[in-house]
Amino acid sequence: MTTGFPPPGDEHAVLALERAALARWCRGDPSGFLELSDDDVGYFDPFRPRRIDGIVELTAYYEQLRGTINAVAWEVLEPRVVEIDDVAILTFCFRSWGASGAMVVWNCTEVYRRRPAGWRIAQTHWSFAAADTPS
Amino acid sequence: MTTGFPPPGDEHAVLALERAALARWCRGDPSGFLELSDDDVGYFDPFRPRRIDGIVELTAYYEQLRGTINAVAWEVLEPRVVEIDDVAILTFCFRSWGASGAMVVWNCTEVYRRRPAGWRIAQTHWSFAAADTPS
Repeated sequence: MTTGFPPPGDEHAVLALERAALARWCRGDPSGFLELSDDDVGYFDPFRPRRIDGIVELTAYYEQLRGTINAVAWEVLEPRVVEIDDVAILTFCFRSWGASGAMVVWNCTEVYRRRPAGWRIAQTHWSFAAADTPS
Repeated sequence: MTTGFPPPGDEHAVLALERAALARWCRGDPSGFLELSDDDVGYFDPFRPRRIDGIVELTAYYEQLRGTINAVAWEVLEPRVVEIDDVAILTFCFRSWGASGAMVVWNCTEVYRRRPAGWRIAQTHWSFAAADTPS
């Protein structure tokens, strides 16, 4: 098990940004993702019946969660970045462990766009992954 | 309830492509999505423990499903397209009804890229949406 640090030296910039935001998230701090998200961001997670549109609505949602998340360990598995013009599609599997030892496994798609100030998240999609049954 | 047809005349090209592929999918025919998917496509759904990478693996998976899907009605809700250079990020909520009347609600992110031959799917992410409880 790793915590995602230190990252491999040759990984894509958006993956390094994502890891840094995840590290903060897992300590209960959503500001890393808020700082990365575009004003026009779209957002899906399995707890919401609808997409969140825009940084104002996402901020309101994340502020409700501030201080409530505590993952004692986490890892990014099989990350992949496909860069197309000023867009970078980052996908990965994410595993995290709570203080009780319970593990959760996620699929994540993050679509980043290059803005003058740097990479920003245009679309986030988090969902639960299926159990990894031996085949 | 609508079946998604006829689509509004002013919708984005990728949404029209998606509706056409969904119509085939809901009749048990995955070829619409296979024809749209890029060679390098990435794919998440809630039944898979890992991302599918590439059209060969996706084809093998979809061929297992051919003829097994039968949605008697379906609708695309709140579609949104964000176009960035040669990329179009399509997100929507999808509801479908089986022959038993059971409804399933999904979140979907489709990242399309413009190829010389037309729009192709670079990344697909399907997941279950939360129940839409009154607030």
